[in-house]
Amino acid sequence: MQAYFIGIDGGGTSCRAAVADADGRIIGRGRSGASNILTDPDTALRHIEEATRLAFGEAGISADLSEASALLGVAGNNVGDAVSYVQARLPFRHSEIVSDGLIALQGALGDDDGAIGIVGTGTIFILRHADEIHYLGGWGFQVGDLGGGARLGHAALQESLLVHDRIRPGSALAARILDEFAHDPRKIVDFARAARPGDYGRYAPVVVSFAAEGDAIALRLMKDAASHVDEALDAMARIDGGTGRLCLLGGLAEIYPSYLAERHRSRLVPPQGDALTGAVALAVKAFRREGV
Amino acid sequence: MQAYFIGIDGGGTSCRAAVADADGRIIGRGRSGASNILTDPDTALRHIEEATRLAFGEAGISADLSEASALLGVAGNNVGDAVSYVQARLPFRHSEIVSDGLIALQGALGDDDGAIGIVGTGTIFILRHADEIHYLGGWGFQVGDLGGGARLGHAALQESLLVHDRIRPGSALAARILDEFAHDPRKIVDFARAARPGDYGRYAPVVVSFAAEGDAIALRLMKDAASHVDEALDAMARIDGGTGRLCLLGGLAEIYPSYLAERHRSRLVPPQGDALTGAVALAVKAFRREGV
Repeated sequence: MQAYFIGIDGGGTSCRAAVADADGRIIGRGRSGASNILTDPDTALRHIEEATRLAFGEAGISADLSEASALLGVAGNNVGDAVSYVQARLPFRHSEIVSDGLIALQGALGDDDGAIGIVGTGTIFILRHADEIHYLGGWGFQVGDLGGGARLGHAALQESLLVHDRIRPGSALAARILDEFAHDPRKIVDFARAARPGDYGRYAPVVVSFAAEGDAIALRLMKDAASHVDEALDAMARIDGGTGRLCLLGGLAEIYPSYLAERHRSRLVPPQGDALTGAVALAVKAFRREGV
Repeated sequence: MQAYFIGIDGGGTSCRAAVADADGRIIGRGRSGASNILTDPDTALRHIEEATRLAFGEAGISADLSEASALLGVAGNNVGDAVSYVQARLPFRHSEIVSDGLIALQGALGDDDGAIGIVGTGTIFILRHADEIHYLGGWGFQVGDLGGGARLGHAALQESLLVHDRIRPGSALAARILDEFAHDPRKIVDFARAARPGDYGRYAPVVVSFAAEGDAIALRLMKDAASHVDEALDAMARIDGGTGRLCLLGGLAEIYPSYLAERHRSRLVPPQGDALTGAVALAVKAFRREGV
């Protein structure tokens, strides 16, 4: 089989694969289900293979995966056990597993220096400067991910309880949330006891839309969240002088710019490409270099 | 058997009982193990009976519990199922289950109007005014208990991660915490994933002691926490005009006064008695009224 480069963007809800020809041009794409190597590595492996076969199918190529080389960007790439398990079972001739953040960075910036902020349910900030990659933030909902949708939704529930107890003045946002829980704080407590980050995150769009209408609580929550993003962007600018390009990615990428400090807002540029494009580009670099 | 009044303070780590004579004078006390009616009602029942028998023993009385009347203050008294289960199995002739907050209020204020703030691992604020009891706050670690030791400890861990990532400037407190986790953020994330409120709460005394030495992060966390307590106290003052007595109870009661707003600090008085004394007083009132 001719040399093909496969890039894979493995996420918690779906797995995307793209196959590129020897020139690095994407000739087919495929998508399958969840590929979380930490929580369910076997399902992840199945979906990685499925997405890759679909990509070869779209390219009209009868694939022999054991002849192809793939680069995968996944969450949990820093957990050695999970990576070893998956790496040993991948169907490819050569494979490399990197962080989902790194393929997003490559997709957004290409080979240039610069920084990205991934602002979705969680948050993480990644900077490439002088051939080094710096990761800031992340660390998950419980003690990190400040500025992410889960923390934003969580803050909205907490505020609603303060409004219910008349500790803080109410607003339309608090009324909307308290209505949903029949004005019974115990229902909010029950929800919170079982809530996963994604469950809290479903309240983030509610906060965003009330903030857009000028709701006082929603605006305060958005500004608090944006100040966390500002702080992380400042920390990256202290490393590279704030000279590189800066992209926001993720579900809140379109929302944050108007809430950020001007010094960051004025630097923002749209990403060149997405994480899957980045994975393919890194695959080409990794395996062409190795001459495979 | 002569009429005896039993007061019980049932907590998550221990159960305390006191027995009073017909005049309401406490003549014996007993202590046993955990009595959480929500998580382990059968153990709670056993410890309630054990503490009561010890109290009768200290009083030198051969007890017939089925002739005595008891008032119990417990956490979870608003969860109907747990209360019904326990109430049906208590060994007493008459029994009444109220909140742990109510016996604390009675102990602190006697029959007077006024307010208490229980500031321990969690927080709750209770006001008695014009024959009504108002509860504010509480709601547990996930979406409430602002100003409590668990939230304070949690905030310290979160700050330490921001310091680790150089998003915020460090301090001796952050260094102390990062040292404990070998400067490996993943160890903090692992801790947080499994941590119960009490686990976070163990970092509260660390914050308190660093704040006393002027540590910048610890001072900011203490002031943030105290501002939540101030807000709750303000909310109670809006109900009663701030005219009644005000007591702080719980593990942080001695710590908060110096961080609170002057308008609250100047009103603080020491509690008259503890929650167990309050339970006995409420038992006397409840059962003497009923003529039992």
